[in-house]
Amino acid sequence: MLAPGCELDPDQEVVRTRPEDYFLRPPSHAPCTACGTVMTVHIVERMASVIPASNSSMRSDRNTYVGKRFVHVKNPYLDSMDEDILYHLYLGTKTHNLPAMFGDVKFVCVGGSPNRMKAFALFMHKELGLEEAEEDIKDICAGTDRYCMYKTGPVTAWAPPPFLLCFMNSSNYHPRFEQVILDNIVTRSTELHKELSEELFNCSKEIPTFRTLIGHTMCTYDFYEGQGRLDGALCSFSTEKKLDYLKRAYKAGVRNIEMESTVSAAMCGLCGLTAAVVCVTLLDRLHCDQINLPHDVLVEYQQRPQLLISNFIRRRLGLCD
Amino acid sequence: MLAPGCELDPDQEVVRTRPEDYFLRPPSHAPCTACGTVMTVHIVERMASVIPASNSSMRSDRNTYVGKRFVHVKNPYLDSMDEDILYHLYLGTKTHNLPAMFGDVKFVCVGGSPNRMKAFALFMHKELGLEEAEEDIKDICAGTDRYCMYKTGPVTAWAPPPFLLCFMNSSNYHPRFEQVILDNIVTRSTELHKELSEELFNCSKEIPTFRTLIGHTMCTYDFYEGQGRLDGALCSFSTEKKLDYLKRAYKAGVRNIEMESTVSAAMCGLCGLTAAVVCVTLLDRLHCDQINLPHDVLVEYQQRPQLLISNFIRRRLGLCD
Repeated sequence: MLAPGCELDPDQEVVRTRPEDYFLRPPSHAPCTACGTVMTVHIVERMASVIPASNSSMRSDRNTYVGKRFVHVKNPYLDSMDEDILYHLYLGTKTHNLPAMFGDVKFVCVGGSPNRMKAFALFMHKELGLEEAEEDIKDICAGTDRYCMYKTGPVTAWAPPPFLLCFMNSSNYHPRFEQVILDNIVTRSTELHKELSEELFNCSKEIPTFRTLIGHTMCTYDFYEGQGRLDGALCSFSTEKKLDYLKRAYKAGVRNIEMESTVSAAMCGLCGLTAAVVCVTLLDRLHCDQINLPHDVLVEYQQRPQLLISNFIRRRLGLCD
Repeated sequence: MLAPGCELDPDQEVVRTRPEDYFLRPPSHAPCTACGTVMTVHIVERMASVIPASNSSMRSDRNTYVGKRFVHVKNPYLDSMDEDILYHLYLGTKTHNLPAMFGDVKFVCVGGSPNRMKAFALFMHKELGLEEAEEDIKDICAGTDRYCMYKTGPVTAWAPPPFLLCFMNSSNYHPRFEQVILDNIVTRSTELHKELSEELFNCSKEIPTFRTLIGHTMCTYDFYEGQGRLDGALCSFSTEKKLDYLKRAYKAGVRNIEMESTVSAAMCGLCGLTAAVVCVTLLDRLHCDQINLPHDVLVEYQQRPQLLISNFIRRRLGLCD
């Protein structure tokens, strides 16, 4: 039994995970101090671990799938559960064969908009040249409207992200997340995977139509006060203080601001998932607060992360020259 | 100009607000220490204040609508904006006539599921006996899939809530929210409207099919660790510590646990909106963690807040005996 409030023991590796564990996020990839539309990509090196605890015969699969990395699920109680109902996804270990459904997944992509993630799944389906009919790519979580999930080959696309508000210490931009667990506040690192960022950046060099860079994402509580906007219902600071704050953030390496990545980055790190956040930035916050781009421009912007991630996945799967 | 990081001046009343300001939440109404499905109701005493800053001729409406209460929007910058684009809602002051669209709204209801809130709007439409065809109740935010919003008469129904993660000091259950604004952490009260809770409770007495009570809601960062669950991907505490924690929460008056109410309660208070959180609790956390109720039972449970709020709205509009 673990002591309450202690940090998780990194040596305690339980080779089991659940689709919900892939709702994860991390640092960044984005141009300028800006407000970004996010898409996160999680690389599951060996997706062997969607193994229901109730099906003990499958646990031997652990050895079958031993590879470079495992997904770490750090909960000693899971193995004693007869059934595991993933309420928010409308899935469960007795009602669904999760290993059959997700055993081949290598890439988990999460974004904020259901339509965008469906579009991404259909785009990836085409890019991967898979035989399955496009009409067969259906929402796996259709039993609920809390989440949507699409799968094509080894790629899943989800929306929305599980966590919409996070915390980043904004006075000194520490990469950490403070999780409240019972009576304790546990501080967790939100450091992401440097090599994956670099790999994505290298992929971006093959796309000449937009500029890509690696930078830090600042994750805030809300869109208005938390991001230093002057156009919310509440505003208690001056334009000068706003600009001073954003300039200091820029100096500290922040090139994007969003609201979803901190918790996910922390969970990715704890679970041993290689992950990156890919954002397209929609405006330069040093110049304005409002997103007033025409609809067609926004649509084109939102396709940019899809293009980059598709490029990356195809390279990883050896489908590029 | 206000000093940075200072609390908002309660005397600085700007009679203007935006639909986004109604994304608000507060304390509670729910049976047992449980996990709840939430629906929030905000009562807008005088919904006169959806007045675009760019349309100065409309500002005289302020006097026309002076009544018992105003929605307070505490941002001195809004009046200088030529256009206000509500990006997440796909609405704007130049593209939409917001006063005409929302000027008669008296009740703003927010819930977690788009389908549930559409169902609620259709239910309210029937309950209010309005003449407009049901087919005409369309998603006002159809241009985006980030939010949905339906309107029938003086009632709007929205999903999802704007804030999915909040903070409540869980060691002593203080009703407060800590907002990060630039370099400062500003503590805000999340106290809700006692009289509204009591009015809702009185309405519940007319519904004999389920039990209703008034209690505190504990708002957490996440569904698993934050709520003391043993069935998440991560768990670092014992069953005994979990139960000790939940029992202390119960003793402190907590009868519901959810993830959406703290920020909204704080915003309601600051903006002068009368608000309540109405939850149906799905399980007793002193006995279990998983939501394993049959689908039809969950559907019936989710209709209970709708029934109570409908009863309340009809009474407020003088449509009950």
